[in-house]
Amino acid sequence: MKHTGIKVFAPASVGNVIVGFDIMGLALNKPGDEIIARFSDKPGLRITKVTGAKGRIPSEVEKNTASVAALSFLDHIGEKGKGIEIEIHKKMPFASGLGSSAASAVAGVFAMNELFKRPLQKRELLPFAVKGEELASKALHADNVAPSLMGGIIFIRNNHELDIQRLPAPKGLYATVIHPKIEIKTSESRGVLNKHITLNNHVLQSGNLGGFIIGLFKSDFDLIGRSLNDILIEPQRAGLIPGFKDVKNAALEQGALGCSISGAGPSIFALSANSFIAENVGSAMQKVFHDLKIDSELFISTINPEGAFKY
Amino acid sequence: MKHTGIKVFAPASVGNVIVGFDIMGLALNKPGDEIIARFSDKPGLRITKVTGAKGRIPSEVEKNTASVAALSFLDHIGEKGKGIEIEIHKKMPFASGLGSSAASAVAGVFAMNELFKRPLQKRELLPFAVKGEELASKALHADNVAPSLMGGIIFIRNNHELDIQRLPAPKGLYATVIHPKIEIKTSESRGVLNKHITLNNHVLQSGNLGGFIIGLFKSDFDLIGRSLNDILIEPQRAGLIPGFKDVKNAALEQGALGCSISGAGPSIFALSANSFIAENVGSAMQKVFHDLKIDSELFISTINPEGAFKY
Repeated sequence: MKHTGIKVFAPASVGNVIVGFDIMGLALNKPGDEIIARFSDKPGLRITKVTGAKGRIPSEVEKNTASVAALSFLDHIGEKGKGIEIEIHKKMPFASGLGSSAASAVAGVFAMNELFKRPLQKRELLPFAVKGEELASKALHADNVAPSLMGGIIFIRNNHELDIQRLPAPKGLYATVIHPKIEIKTSESRGVLNKHITLNNHVLQSGNLGGFIIGLFKSDFDLIGRSLNDILIEPQRAGLIPGFKDVKNAALEQGALGCSISGAGPSIFALSANSFIAENVGSAMQKVFHDLKIDSELFISTINPEGAFKY
Repeated sequence: MKHTGIKVFAPASVGNVIVGFDIMGLALNKPGDEIIARFSDKPGLRITKVTGAKGRIPSEVEKNTASVAALSFLDHIGEKGKGIEIEIHKKMPFASGLGSSAASAVAGVFAMNELFKRPLQKRELLPFAVKGEELASKALHADNVAPSLMGGIIFIRNNHELDIQRLPAPKGLYATVIHPKIEIKTSESRGVLNKHITLNNHVLQSGNLGGFIIGLFKSDFDLIGRSLNDILIEPQRAGLIPGFKDVKNAALEQGALGCSISGAGPSIFALSANSFIAENVGSAMQKVFHDLKIDSELFISTINPEGAFKY
């Protein structure tokens, strides 16, 4: 018997958002992951097809981020034995700092919820998606998973409690993200981080985090711009990305509100007050990498308001 | 010639507000400092009377917080030589963690601005008040000065830039502050603080700070309550205040949203969602100190919306 399938999309996301290490993330419109899921007469979950990411995505159900998230959900609803086939189409760069594993995890669990006619609300899918993401990143945080699922700019008060809050995204806010085609492993990028910071730097960074949040609530682009300055993480990671300083300076010269590393890198992310600036910022960033003979991909996006969806 | 005077009031304030070390403060309605100022035929600024604080407030113009702030303002407007007399009536506890020196500094500069018919806007007085506060606390931060001057719950994005933001105070929010009559010097209270913190604790505390700010904007008392948990500073300072843990537990048992040390202590501060809870919290706190045979003063207050004023 041939079953008809459903197709879902989960978007890329920018973790940290410059001043919220491990506790903020925002969703892009593109790129992202597509998953097609259908019931099957053969019991159990199987991955029948994987495209994209140059064959680096495992197709074993226990090792794949999307299927691990899906299984955790199926277990919860008591349908782990049900015959289901999924196809995973990774339509975004892998290990890029754009939340690739989070998008897979979200797409996996979101597809299952759709296939079973939504037994859970969207927000309730978060813990299952986090399980998948944990497999890939070896750490528990929702700063990519939550925005990929829910959309918007997400603040995570506490990663263990998954206490998430949606921040307002002022009208006109644009994200520009450039992915230089070099690779940094998240584990390496986390490895360079000192496990201690000074109390003084905590105070300064907290001031910027609070300023950013207040700026979003007040749609105060000046305040957002003054606040988007990462004194903690960026100085430790910038050296991993060739040309980082020049790309950042180019973005700021074009009027970006702020510019820093997207998640664990190597992608670089800027926020701008309108699409015109966002496009100029993108061109300027791309020129720097071009001059350095580094291939890059550019994504310019409003803040995605919805997150994962079914086509 | 007899000159008529003006009389001003600057309120006490709660620094840190549990999760915003050095970058948040809120204004109480009472207690506070009164200053009477009048022109005089004798050139220069003089302190003619000081009451309160058991004679511990210096009456030398160069050593007194209020007059140092006043002089800095007078210098700015080019009136340093003008004959002026001030009386300082300290109507609040000294070295209590309630921003006593900040209230003096604010009252000093605010009185001068009133005496000269407001050459500057209220907000523009902040740098001069900070100068006075710096004399007393040996550190530059505006977490008491800014709320005492402006009222409300103030967030300081950057103390050096004096980039301050007013946070919304949800309707019903009450502060309960108890001042046990023991003394901790701010310098001692700062001395116990480790100059380094773990990155992990930074992430947790930042989550709570952001949660608190979002809770204020959304009037979400549950979120405010979940967020008011200081994992950084309170554990290091609690030991300086006899009975702290019992007072805190008593406040939380009565339904306080959160409870911790006010500024550098020894006062203890709780936030509550209405006056009924705030009063129960106050009684419970006071009972603990009474049982410990420690005298205490209790202040229950809405968030003061205006800060310093002229009678």
